[in-house]
Amino acid sequence: MKTWESYIRKVDPYVPGEQPKEKNVIKLNTNENPYPPAPGVVKALEAFDTDYLRRYPDPAVSRLTSALAQNYGLKQEQVFVGVGSDDVLAMSFLTFFNSEKPILFPDITYSFYDVWAKLYRIPYETPAVDESFHIRKEDYYKENGGVVIANPNAPTSIYENLDFIRDILDHNRDVIVIVDEAYIDFGGESAISLLPEYENLLVVQTFSKSRSMAGMRIGYAMGNEKLIKALSDVKYSFNSYTMNQTSISLGVEAVKDVDYFNKTRNQIISTREKSKERLKEFGFSFPDSKSNFIFATHEMIDAGELFEALKKEHIFVRHFTGERIKDYLRITIGTEEEMDAFFSFVEGYLKEKGGK
Amino acid sequence: MKTWESYIRKVDPYVPGEQPKEKNVIKLNTNENPYPPAPGVVKALEAFDTDYLRRYPDPAVSRLTSALAQNYGLKQEQVFVGVGSDDVLAMSFLTFFNSEKPILFPDITYSFYDVWAKLYRIPYETPAVDESFHIRKEDYYKENGGVVIANPNAPTSIYENLDFIRDILDHNRDVIVIVDEAYIDFGGESAISLLPEYENLLVVQTFSKSRSMAGMRIGYAMGNEKLIKALSDVKYSFNSYTMNQTSISLGVEAVKDVDYFNKTRNQIISTREKSKERLKEFGFSFPDSKSNFIFATHEMIDAGELFEALKKEHIFVRHFTGERIKDYLRITIGTEEEMDAFFSFVEGYLKEKGGK
Repeated sequence: MKTWESYIRKVDPYVPGEQPKEKNVIKLNTNENPYPPAPGVVKALEAFDTDYLRRYPDPAVSRLTSALAQNYGLKQEQVFVGVGSDDVLAMSFLTFFNSEKPILFPDITYSFYDVWAKLYRIPYETPAVDESFHIRKEDYYKENGGVVIANPNAPTSIYENLDFIRDILDHNRDVIVIVDEAYIDFGGESAISLLPEYENLLVVQTFSKSRSMAGMRIGYAMGNEKLIKALSDVKYSFNSYTMNQTSISLGVEAVKDVDYFNKTRNQIISTREKSKERLKEFGFSFPDSKSNFIFATHEMIDAGELFEALKKEHIFVRHFTGERIKDYLRITIGTEEEMDAFFSFVEGYLKEKGGK
Repeated sequence: MKTWESYIRKVDPYVPGEQPKEKNVIKLNTNENPYPPAPGVVKALEAFDTDYLRRYPDPAVSRLTSALAQNYGLKQEQVFVGVGSDDVLAMSFLTFFNSEKPILFPDITYSFYDVWAKLYRIPYETPAVDESFHIRKEDYYKENGGVVIANPNAPTSIYENLDFIRDILDHNRDVIVIVDEAYIDFGGESAISLLPEYENLLVVQTFSKSRSMAGMRIGYAMGNEKLIKALSDVKYSFNSYTMNQTSISLGVEAVKDVDYFNKTRNQIISTREKSKERLKEFGFSFPDSKSNFIFATHEMIDAGELFEALKKEHIFVRHFTGERIKDYLRITIGTEEEMDAFFSFVEGYLKEKGGK
C-alpha cells in the first residue's frame, strides 16, 4: 500500500436500494410516491427562466422557507431547508451533538443515524426496540447527549402518538431531541404542535415521500429560532449554496398545492389499508403501519426467497439482512394497479409454496 | 445558557457574497458567468419529464460522469460529481486527509479550505504567498498530510503553469495533491493531462463559472480510479442521493455543447483582456489574470470606499477585509456592456477624487 493510500478514510461502502433503469418495473422498494408531483410543479418547470441558472441561488432559500413557514403556521426563522432530509439530519447531528455523552436512538431505525454519528465522532448508544419492534420510552430516560426518534420509525413503520413523544421530551430537557418525520403525512400527527412548548425539539421532514419529489432532494427542519439559526450558521460556515434554483422554485409550488397533497396522501393511505387486509388474508403479519410502506413477514416463507422471486418478475421490494429483521420485507405502497400486480404474484407464489 | 445550548457547535458565521434581489443591478461580485447556459440546457429543461421527480436520482449519477469522462478523454471511473465544487472539495478533504500531519495550502486562497480543515479536525499550515501574491513552490517541499492548490488561485487570479504544478507533484509523492481548477477554462492549462503520470493527483472543477450554471450546483473531481472509488465510498456511506434529477439532465447538456462553451469563455477572455487595458489606463495595478475576474488595487483610492460608491450605483464588486488584501477589489468579468458601465462610473469617480 502506498503512503497516500493509508491516509484515505476507511468506510463500509453502503449499497443504496436498487434503482432499476428498465421502464416496465413495479418499484415498491424505496418508499417513493406512486403519483407525480403537483400540477403547479410541472407548470413552474415549464415557466422556469433558464437565465437564472447562471446565478448562484439565494443561500437563505427564503422563498422556500417562507412557503413552508406559512404552510405550518410558523415563523420563517423557524425553518431550515437542505438537500434532502439526509443533508438536514447530518447537519443537525453536526450542529447539536457536541457533548461528551452518548446520543440515543433505537437499534432498529433509519440506517444512516449511526453512520453520521461515526462520521462526526459522536458517541452513541442504541437501546433495543421490544419484540414487537416498539421503542421503549424508558430507555430514553437516562443521561445522554441527544435523542433521535424516527416517527413513524423505519423500516418498522410503527407510529407512536404525541403523548409518547411528549414523554420523551419531558425526560430530556437538557438535550436536543430530533423527531424525524419522513413518513408523518401518511396518518400520523406531527410533533410540530409541540414546538411552542419544547424549545429543544427539532422536527425534520422531507419532500421525498408525501410530496412526490424524491428526485429533487429537499428536506427541512423546524424548531425554535435559536436552533434554526445554529443550523444556518453551521451550514453557511462550510457550504453556502446547496439548494439549486430548480429545487427552490419547484419546492415552493409543491408546498402551495395543499389540495393535491391531501388527495394523493389520502389515496396512498386508502391503498395501504386495503393492502393490509390482503396481506392478512395471505397469512402475512406486520406491525400496524402509518407510513407509505408495510413491514411484513410470513411464517411459511423465506423473505429473501420471496424478494428474489418478485425481482425476477420485475417487482422490486426491499429486504434487509440485519439479524432481527431478516424475515421481513419492506413493501412500499404503490398505485392500486401496482399493488394488484404485487398481490397477484404473491398469491401464485404462496400456492406454489403451499404457504396458503 | 441552557445545557442543550452548550452542546451546539460553535462556528464563525460566514457571510456569503451579496445576492441582490433587484433586477437592474450590474453584478460583478460572485464570479458568475454573464452569459446564459448552452441552448441545449434550455431545451432539456423544456423536455424534462416531471414524473421523474417522484423517483430518487441515480446515486452514481452515471449519465453525467459518462458525459464528463467522454469530454475529457477519461474513463467514467475517473470522474466523481457532487453538489457544487464546495461539496466535492469538502468530501475530498474528509476522504483523503486522514494522516496526523498538517495539510498545506496558501495563506491567501479560497476561503473555505481552512473551514473544512477545522470542520474535519485536519491539522493544516498556510505558507504565505510572496509579495506579488505568487505561491512559493518551495514551501510545499516539506513533509505534510496533503496539498491543496487553487489554480488559478482565488482571489488573486494568478495562474501557474503545469511545470509549477508538476514540481509540486514531484515533491509530494506520498500524499494526495488537490488542484482546484474552478477558473481554469479562462486561459489556463488543466492538470488533467498530468493524471496518467500522477496517481495521487485529484483535479476539481465546477459548472458554476465557465458553464454558466452556478444556480445548478454541480462540481466534479477527476483522478485515478482508486481515488474516485474512495470518494464514492465515502459519499455513499453517508448521503447516497445528492445530485437532483434536473442537475443531472441539464448538466449533461452543458457538457455536450462544446462550441457554445468555447464561444462564451473566449468572449469572457476577450472582455477580460480589454478590461486589463482600461484598468491600467485608469492607474490600477493587478496580478495578470487568467480567470474570469481581476484582482485590482489603486494607489490613490481606498478600495472599501470605491466598493461602497459602486454599490450605491447598483454595481456590485467584491471587497475582502483580510489584512493583506484589503486594498484590492475583485471584479468579475461581465458582458462588454456591463464593463462599459463599470468603467464609466470609475472614470467619473477617479476624476472626482483626483485619482487621475
